Amino acid sequence: MDDIGSLPWHLTAPSFAEIEAAADRIRGVLVETPLLESERLNAQLGGRLLLKAEGLQRTGSFKARGAWNRLSLLTPEERARGVVAFSSGNHGQGVAWAGRRLGVASVVILMPADAPAAKIERTRGWGAEVVLYDRVHEDREALGRRLSAERGLVLVPPYEDRRVIAGAGTLGLEVARQALAMGAAPDALLVCCSGGGLSAGCALAWEALLPAARVFAVEPEGFDDTARSLAAGERVSNAPGGASLCDAVLAMTPGVLTFSINAPRLGGGLVVSDAEALAAMRVAFEEFGLVAEPGGAVALAAALSGRLPMAGRTVAVALTGANVDPTMFARALA
Amino acid sequence: MDDIGSLPWHLTAPSFAEIEAAADRIRGVLVETPLLESERLNAQLGGRLLLKAEGLQRTGSFKARGAWNRLSLLTPEERARGVVAFSSGNHGQGVAWAGRRLGVASVVILMPADAPAAKIERTRGWGAEVVLYDRVHEDREALGRRLSAERGLVLVPPYEDRRVIAGAGTLGLEVARQALAMGAAPDALLVCCSGGGLSAGCALAWEALLPAARVFAVEPEGFDDTARSLAAGERVSNAPGGASLCDAVLAMTPGVLTFSINAPRLGGGLVVSDAEALAAMRVAFEEFGLVAEPGGAVALAAALSGRLPMAGRTVAVALTGANVDPTMFARALA
Repeated sequence: MDDIGSLPWHLTAPSFAEIEAAADRIRGVLVETPLLESERLNAQLGGRLLLKAEGLQRTGSFKARGAWNRLSLLTPEERARGVVAFSSGNHGQGVAWAGRRLGVASVVILMPADAPAAKIERTRGWGAEVVLYDRVHEDREALGRRLSAERGLVLVPPYEDRRVIAGAGTLGLEVARQALAMGAAPDALLVCCSGGGLSAGCALAWEALLPAARVFAVEPEGFDDTARSLAAGERVSNAPGGASLCDAVLAMTPGVLTFSINAPRLGGGLVVSDAEALAAMRVAFEEFGLVAEPGGAVALAAALSGRLPMAGRTVAVALTGANVDPTMFARALA
Repeated sequence: MDDIGSLPWHLTAPSFAEIEAAADRIRGVLVETPLLESERLNAQLGGRLLLKAEGLQRTGSFKARGAWNRLSLLTPEERARGVVAFSSGNHGQGVAWAGRRLGVASVVILMPADAPAAKIERTRGWGAEVVLYDRVHEDREALGRRLSAERGLVLVPPYEDRRVIAGAGTLGLEVARQALAMGAAPDALLVCCSGGGLSAGCALAWEALLPAARVFAVEPEGFDDTARSLAAGERVSNAPGGASLCDAVLAMTPGVLTFSINAPRLGGGLVVSDAEALAAMRVAFEEFGLVAEPGGAVALAAALSGRLPMAGRTVAVALTGANVDPTMFARALA
């Protein structure tokens, strides 16, 4: 798989022009989420933190970007057959929403049985058929491939697809342009990282628009496969049996495609604890009036906890998802 | 006071051009907060609800608009003297923030001793001197006038001032333009109402931009002085001793200036219970990923509870503030 030349087209990196085309495709359908800052927080940090409020996105996370871009590119006959996706919840909601809005005949979402209830319910709410699986004992990719083969459904992977990565990259494109329009010159962008699609898309966008700046991938403790892979220079996996509150970002190994994009481009990987993610959720609540889910708050947590020094710098941070059960949110506030 | 001709200039209605000038003044300083919608919620309501996410505004409420506009118009010598404002918390934060940013020498904020701790702390955080008073037994307007006279401070009222009303009206201006840009044709705008400045400013903006639509003022039970005044055709006050969780919107009587603007223009007044405001906070959390304070959620509560029928209509709703203590927010989620 390391010989890129032998890979199918969809498993190679998108160009910057494809990210721009994705941005054109989502315009007027998705939300151009605001880039906010808190003067009080900036004073505390001694730097300038620009927060991309992506929890305000359709379906409550950045995943709607990649889903919309990928499903917009289905052929009419593919739309008539349908799609299948596996997801911890946010990608599935994005695919279900985009599928309904684009008139895709059938949308099947494979979700872990221990996904937050709100995510399962909302995915069904968009008209998708939800198939639950055991996250520990079943292989979601194999399940997805089997469903795809049996029912003729197009498999929409959460990150290993250049169209999904291009869609995710529109977040980076927007942040760069919004920051420049505010007169800010960001030194870095922090994004959450599971399989690496968001960091890959953003790294490609920032390479073109802000080449002196660096994108960092932020993961929760126990699921720092990308941080360790970047350090090792090769894809390594997490030890099984880990647990984290950050349900949205629990991939076990970087994607082949995403790692090939991320490895030469990212500034590095940063790791935060569950407690730091919960503390960041509270800061998003207090300083910005925004709801964040634990996995969506890890990038903010990295900035607040000093994983990336903020003093004298301008750092953009993506708050990437708001799909959190009320009990978990109340826990973050307690 | 009913003879408008005898009133000083600042106690007469602003023109639409003054609202546009205020919008120019706040551009690049305040946030153009997004106008969001939830397809799921629209389906439930059978109409289209456009939510102005004004809790994302600087200082966490729409009050920064009027404060910035008023303080921007201070003369250099007034800036050198300073300002005083009375406020349940949000106007005070707006004035304190604007005062610091504009280099006003001294900012004094009179706040009720029972205001939420976060509001008091944040007002002090902007460098203001906070003077607490007893909301039941002391007259904040008299206190404000005394401080103004004793210390040579310019009194910045929360609504009885054409410059403050013009600033608040920029919210209506933005909503109208954002809705039109989305291809929506709103039938109505719902805003919270305390002294009536926001509804007055928005009514003036919508009269110019969306003359067929109507603006409605929404108040909490026990503090429905504007609703009853509109029905009676004259200013009436609330019975003393009322209590509400909606701390931001507890004015006892409509302003003279605001009522003179609102009476001929508003579609009417709507009243919601504390329980309905809390339920609306939960909907803002679940459907939009937004934090709202109880008083900031009353307009959304009116739409959700059917006070204004939504079926077949497009209704813009302002979610006007996010300054809520974590315990109160957790109560709304419980």
